[in-house]
Amino acid sequence: MQKRIRDYGIYPGRMKQGKRNKITDVPGVLAGHCTVRDGESRTGVTVILPGTDNAFLNPYTAAAYVHNGFGKSAGLMQIEELGTLETPIALTNTLNVGRVWDAVADHVLRECERDGAPALSINPAVGECNDSRINRISSRIIGQEQVEYAFSHACEDPEEGAVGAGTGTVCYGLKGGIGTASRVVEIGGREYTIGVLVQSNFGATEDLVVDGKALGREILKKCQREETGKEGKTAFSEQDKGSIMSILATDLPVTARQLKRIIRRLGAGIARTGAYMGHGSGEVMIGFTTANRVPSVKLRREKEELRMLAAIPEETINRAFLAAAEAEEEAILNSMVTAAETQGLQGERYRSLAEFLGE
Amino acid sequence: MQKRIRDYGIYPGRMKQGKRNKITDVPGVLAGHCTVRDGESRTGVTVILPGTDNAFLNPYTAAAYVHNGFGKSAGLMQIEELGTLETPIALTNTLNVGRVWDAVADHVLRECERDGAPALSINPAVGECNDSRINRISSRIIGQEQVEYAFSHACEDPEEGAVGAGTGTVCYGLKGGIGTASRVVEIGGREYTIGVLVQSNFGATEDLVVDGKALGREILKKCQREETGKEGKTAFSEQDKGSIMSILATDLPVTARQLKRIIRRLGAGIARTGAYMGHGSGEVMIGFTTANRVPSVKLRREKEELRMLAAIPEETINRAFLAAAEAEEEAILNSMVTAAETQGLQGERYRSLAEFLGE
Amino acid sequence: MQKRIRDYGIYPGRMKQGKRNKITDVPGVLAGHCTVRDGESRTGVTVILPGTDNAFLNPYTAAAYVHNGFGKSAGLMQIEELGTLETPIALTNTLNVGRVWDAVADHVLRECERDGAPALSINPAVGECNDSRINRISSRIIGQEQVEYAFSHACEDPEEGAVGAGTGTVCYGLKGGIGTASRVVEIGGREYTIGVLVQSNFGATEDLVVDGKALGREILKKCQREETGKEGKTAFSEQDKGSIMSILATDLPVTARQLKRIIRRLGAGIARTGAYMGHGSGEVMIGFTTANRVPSVKLRREKEELRMLAAIPEETINRAFLAAAEAEEEAILNSMVTAAETQGLQGERYRSLAEFLGE
Amino acid sequence: MQKRIRDYGIYPGRMKQGKRNKITDVPGVLAGHCTVRDGESRTGVTVILPGTDNAFLNPYTAAAYVHNGFGKSAGLMQIEELGTLETPIALTNTLNVGRVWDAVADHVLRECERDGAPALSINPAVGECNDSRINRISSRIIGQEQVEYAFSHACEDPEEGAVGAGTGTVCYGLKGGIGTASRVVEIGGREYTIGVLVQSNFGATEDLVVDGKALGREILKKCQREETGKEGKTAFSEQDKGSIMSILATDLPVTARQLKRIIRRLGAGIARTGAYMGHGSGEVMIGFTTANRVPSVKLRREKEELRMLAAIPEETINRAFLAAAEAEEEAILNSMVTAAETQGLQGERYRSLAEFLGE
Repeated sequence: MQKRIRDYGIYPGRMKQGKRNKITDVPGVLAGHCTVRDGESRTGVTVILPGTDNAFLNPYTAAAYVHNGFGKSAGLMQIEELGTLETPIALTNTLNVGRVWDAVADHVLRECERDGAPALSINPAVGECNDSRINRISSRIIGQEQVEYAFSHACEDPEEGAVGAGTGTVCYGLKGGIGTASRVVEIGGREYTIGVLVQSNFGATEDLVVDGKALGREILKKCQREETGKEGKTAFSEQDKGSIMSILATDLPVTARQLKRIIRRLGAGIARTGAYMGHGSGEVMIGFTTANRVPSVKLRREKEELRMLAAIPEETINRAFLAAAEAEEEAILNSMVTAAETQGLQGERYRSLAEFLGE
Repeated sequence: MQKRIRDYGIYPGRMKQGKRNKITDVPGVLAGHCTVRDGESRTGVTVILPGTDNAFLNPYTAAAYVHNGFGKSAGLMQIEELGTLETPIALTNTLNVGRVWDAVADHVLRECERDGAPALSINPAVGECNDSRINRISSRIIGQEQVEYAFSHACEDPEEGAVGAGTGTVCYGLKGGIGTASRVVEIGGREYTIGVLVQSNFGATEDLVVDGKALGREILKKCQREETGKEGKTAFSEQDKGSIMSILATDLPVTARQLKRIIRRLGAGIARTGAYMGHGSGEVMIGFTTANRVPSVKLRREKEELRMLAAIPEETINRAFLAAAEAEEEAILNSMVTAAETQGLQGERYRSLAEFLGE
Repeated sequence: MQKRIRDYGIYPGRMKQGKRNKITDVPGVLAGHCTVRDGESRTGVTVILPGTDNAFLNPYTAAAYVHNGFGKSAGLMQIEELGTLETPIALTNTLNVGRVWDAVADHVLRECERDGAPALSINPAVGECNDSRINRISSRIIGQEQVEYAFSHACEDPEEGAVGAGTGTVCYGLKGGIGTASRVVEIGGREYTIGVLVQSNFGATEDLVVDGKALGREILKKCQREETGKEGKTAFSEQDKGSIMSILATDLPVTARQLKRIIRRLGAGIARTGAYMGHGSGEVMIGFTTANRVPSVKLRREKEELRMLAAIPEETINRAFLAAAEAEEEAILNSMVTAAETQGLQGERYRSLAEFLGE
Repeated sequence: MQKRIRDYGIYPGRMKQGKRNKITDVPGVLAGHCTVRDGESRTGVTVILPGTDNAFLNPYTAAAYVHNGFGKSAGLMQIEELGTLETPIALTNTLNVGRVWDAVADHVLRECERDGAPALSINPAVGECNDSRINRISSRIIGQEQVEYAFSHACEDPEEGAVGAGTGTVCYGLKGGIGTASRVVEIGGREYTIGVLVQSNFGATEDLVVDGKALGREILKKCQREETGKEGKTAFSEQDKGSIMSILATDLPVTARQLKRIIRRLGAGIARTGAYMGHGSGEVMIGFTTANRVPSVKLRREKEELRMLAAIPEETINRAFLAAAEAEEEAILNSMVTAAETQGLQGERYRSLAEFLGE
């Protein structure tokens, strides 16, 4: 078992968390990693599956939101226009977006073939962070093999930290990674779950705040004292850059418009860890709900019929907003404490947040 | 009976029109004008009511879209965020937005008082065009009295042309005004209506196209020949500026996202009349549906419950797109042929399109 | 002298503040209030002037950003389209937007008349918060007289707290108001200023964070113990609603695109005080720079010429981002500590943050 | 020489065209194709180079606009955020976006390596249309080899019609393809060029309008009469779907905001050919100017300095708007008349517009 932020006595927010406190608390949702550590390649891919059936034939109500568009994510345009997600979501490094796009398209094409509904158009959702401080990014090493590995290892209890797309990321100058968390929301007497998964790769060290405490400044001071002829120098981030990808899953019955409002609040969770959305830090959010699925024409054989959707009353949406913000904050902290110290390409040390807690 | 574009043998588009071929073909929708012709004040206000009950207590699913934001319309921000319309829509001249806003707020405040649900926050939807070539706009003559007049004269068969908010507008250098049209859309074996009402005040004369024919250029040539010592000179528009407000009403069961997609296609209707969205021509669209109303908290006394919405299948939406484009084109042409020649503040003549048709 | 947040030993952020630590540190910028306390009317208007000359003849490069669009602000659409601000900005209560819009238009019309350049189209920028817990908002008491008073009292050292548009606002369940702060940014060896002014009226008490400390929860507990037969009950906010208007002024040479990026970061400042952008809390940002002014056609008499702009290198923009976030946080805290306890319309007490600090 | 729309006596619009009436009339701009006709693969890639030097080291001021987001284009998010284009633009088929993305990234990585400035982050701009009626799209046949071929064949006088990314496209049910056109704009006594290149793959046959004439309806009727035992049936498009990519190049000194306003008007050009922006027709615009380049940090070795930009006066922008609309209309018509009849995968005939003109 990985030690998570709560194991250090830090409980972000006030809402109740889900069973595993992971994005996979949303029924049906799975996540899988492929981690590559091969010479100077220390990178990977992480996939989030909204369910086990073919999303292309039965898309999910979805939304995308761009907080800061310095990034290369693919697939957002169509998600916004149609309010639907028709593939799993894949996260990887910046220069691998093309190859991972192709591998996801390939995966879905084969699924559709198998399901007797060949596809001619697919909109893979691919997010990315720039892990070039730890990974020789120009190698573009992630391709079909790695993506298929991640798909086949998708599970309900995904690992966190320096795995998959988080293998080479850096967060607040410490080691970043994949993190996840969840919250339970009650509306109309029923419980729903909001889960978040992040690929954390942002933040200036100086800005890091943990549970209201300006820990970043302390870390800077402490490490400056320590640096005395060690083999590797501790690395820091002077600028808030690098990006964070945030994926939100829920089973709340919401429209695409409501979902977009919810994922915008993920930014509040990021801000709670101290960052201010730096210029070079692409902040991209994708959200989907397992309620209100939208059967494609191919699936429906019956006659033309209206589609019925359920939506939470707008005045209850604050519960989802707060859940999103809290889960985001906790997912970021989880991504950091579960990631062990890692060496950068220049031999510098990206230390673990875990080292600076629990004292 | 006013003579409309079809009475000149011109039938824009190919879809079936509604009973009256007006926005009021959508059941429940009413429109009313107050026309002011008082010295150099030649302006007015037009109101569109989505229904006869208090919209504030039971808002309409709605959308707003800004094609070109050089304009002063009010209320769009909240319509976009919440996807709802909570007041009637009022159209007026540019400098009267504040007073009309206040008058609509006043009207709704009194309605809510009457309905036993006092309101503390209202989002009036107000559109405007700049009618300063014909109207002494700095007088800001439209206020509560005129707005109330328009409300109390709202009806199912509103007049077109140089009335209400169209009293002083200019379109393609000819007299513009209020125009309306509608189309019938069949989905899932049921017929729905899409109605459009415009306040037309845009376009360079040279660009006018009527039913595919470049009439603007012909009008320019013809009038240049004619100008020989007449008392008033024929006016033209050299630039595409001045704005067009477009209101779309429907009873189609659609979400706010779908509705926004539909009203974006109103621009195709504008383009069919020759314009290219000039810099100074604010192009603002507001749409609402009488399906999928959203009862406010005040109205609902029962316990917290999910809201159910109906939505057309996305792959049938082209019918609504084409209906919107066609109704928009026809509404613009109607606004022009029904508007009689009017004198400008400099004595210049804003002639009627009617004069140049039917030959 | 009003006691501000720094006087309590709390120094938000790490950047250097401007001379007065107010929005008016940006050369030329003035702010003025009209405060109304008349029976149950406890409201007002605050104006921010980008300079002393007629903005309509020489607009400012500007940007608007809507973080949460549940609100009635006017004028944003054109600011976004053209990237210019052509009037002072006025803040008031929700139901007074129409009357204040009209008063600002009137003011500018007269200014233009005086400057020999009569105007036919004006885009007043008006922001608002709902102060209906303290103010009988339906009276819509703010009109031309109050707006003119605010204009004529605009100065370089504006008061903060329960004044002007902040007279009746509530923030985190305590008394809100007007607050301001500034930061100094160095780029290319020159110092520039970023100033922020807020009208604070948002936040659930439980969420309030001051300098990383979860003060809101403590206040809730403390006041629950205290409540024993006092004349007025302490008020709280259970929901994050009500809105916050944020105005950013700068003399940085930036384009409208860069300015929009900068004002988006004001949200990080809001989040630092604990809120998560609640459903009912309109969060609207307007920014302008006194660099890169855009002379209108009326002013330019010379021949058609290209306009020259200066822009900071994009990679230095983080300094402006952080400055915006820090100034926003401090402006909010200033708005609260400078506002004295005020009674609500139901006799409830909106206490001052000042009461809970400095112990 | 290919026969273009003007060779049929049809002159869209009224503005003066550039020397070649192609996007390459903008000094420095080149375009190149790689056409694949290999069994059932009939597709390709087209690249547009803003200039001959490395765009990554010296990005172009740019803008992106999404008229209808049903599509898979990549790179738009960053173009919008930063207002810059840092790679050539590539157009291809829908399922090849990933591989073409990777090939463009590879090309730029090598360029940067060669220029002594290794890149760690690249934002390839890739557009696409779905050519699956003529091309076996699931083969995803376009990769590095084809992209490099297109780059090395980029020239000032690119071919039009069924070449490159237009090899397999269908427009208004006839054969579509690549088309281009240009217009000359005079501002401040100097001439500038606006050039457009389209990949046309949209429109219902019934809607086609050529120079104001409803040709689509006539074609439908005519072909229905003809169909008598021919080997291949004439194909039509019942729905407006499939997409159109529009690339605008200019040497006008404009800001990213102004450029975005200009490319929005490309939609008016599309509408002039009869379409109404169908649900399934992704309409994506990318624009760049060769004025106002933005040297990257890597290139600048000197100290931090403000960047100077030139911008046309906003009130002259209508000339650019009209130029964009006219060039778009003509580019679409050129794409059709230069494309010869092509057989679809089912043996159906996608006939050439040329066949129906000049009678």
